[in-house]
Amino acid sequence: MTTTQEEDRLNAQIAFAVEIDKLKRVIRRNSLMDGSRRENDAEHSWYVGLLAMILAEHAPQGTDIQRVVAMLLVHDLVEIDAGDTFVYDPVAVAAQIDAERAAADRIFALLPSDQAVLFRELWEEFEARETVEARFAKALDRFAPILANHHTEGGTWPLFKVTAGQVREKVKIIEDGSESLGVYANELIDLSVSRGHLSE
Amino acid sequence: MTTTQEEDRLNAQIAFAVEIDKLKRVIRRNSLMDGSRRENDAEHSWYVGLLAMILAEHAPQGTDIQRVVAMLLVHDLVEIDAGDTFVYDPVAVAAQIDAERAAADRIFALLPSDQAVLFRELWEEFEARETVEARFAKALDRFAPILANHHTEGGTWPLFKVTAGQVREKVKIIEDGSESLGVYANELIDLSVSRGHLSE
Repeated sequence: MTTTQEEDRLNAQIAFAVEIDKLKRVIRRNSLMDGSRRENDAEHSWYVGLLAMILAEHAPQGTDIQRVVAMLLVHDLVEIDAGDTFVYDPVAVAAQIDAERAAADRIFALLPSDQAVLFRELWEEFEARETVEARFAKALDRFAPILANHHTEGGTWPLFKVTAGQVREKVKIIEDGSESLGVYANELIDLSVSRGHLSE
Repeated sequence: MTTTQEEDRLNAQIAFAVEIDKLKRVIRRNSLMDGSRRENDAEHSWYVGLLAMILAEHAPQGTDIQRVVAMLLVHDLVEIDAGDTFVYDPVAVAAQIDAERAAADRIFALLPSDQAVLFRELWEEFEARETVEARFAKALDRFAPILANHHTEGGTWPLFKVTAGQVREKVKIIEDGSESLGVYANELIDLSVSRGHLSE
């Protein structure tokens, strides 16, 4: 920090860093894998970012995994203002779009303007699901709660009256990002149904 | 998944993914920035990973930030077995080395062997603090709790009887990874002392 301009940049970066700490208090619908409590958005973001590294070979060849990781680390920041949306509630999902856009306008603008553009682009790319990177990122975002619910005897599926048909509908997004993870997710659902942890 | 070999690989990756969920239950010494509760290792790992992206320009030129992010996402996994160590407790820090090595032996071995090597290398590199990437990663790992304590009126510093001298000792690791973040961290400490939130 030698000039005022550099100080301003760092101060903006720190203001953003302080703001995003709030993601640790946004609670999701699924539980931890031991069922002890519901998961928050920050630890979920860590989990799916690392999942991208672990499951990289299940992305189409040529996928830029580091961009997938970056996308997953920022993908839920808008929920600081907009809150978590239950993917099985279509009315809430529709209402969420404007709320998330307004949140993106406010939150990313805390950064120095060049960085605000880059971070927002990552989020927009994730949401648009047009690149292989965004498709794989979105697949992991859907895959993680299915894995968690499967490992907690259905977890929050019965609590929120989610059916196997609804979960299978979400698996289409997994199949779209990763063929092999799509197959695996469908196997988990069949297994959860046969064990009586998920209703048809 | 067309062959048994591919199935075995995916099963190993999933076993690792299920295991690392436990990081969400390892509790650290510092609080969230609103002081509402102590932070866990998983959300901390997300935070410092994203901090690397936000503060990338504060690393020495040529630093591979994507490697820094990857390192930070895996850096605390060994604490699933070894637990969090309080950096201001030298006896605990010394005892921790063997426990973390044993944890690394067990946890990374859950992965397919080629990936086990790559993930372990990331952790070893972080711990050795010899590359610019590891130095910057370690700097952020030290920077985050100082920022959190500063923003919560000293946070857990008074609770654990930590002095400004002890915190300044830790800032050397920040200076070693990033000159500008080292300067900034020292400013935060001076400010915390002047406000009476940290004792000399």
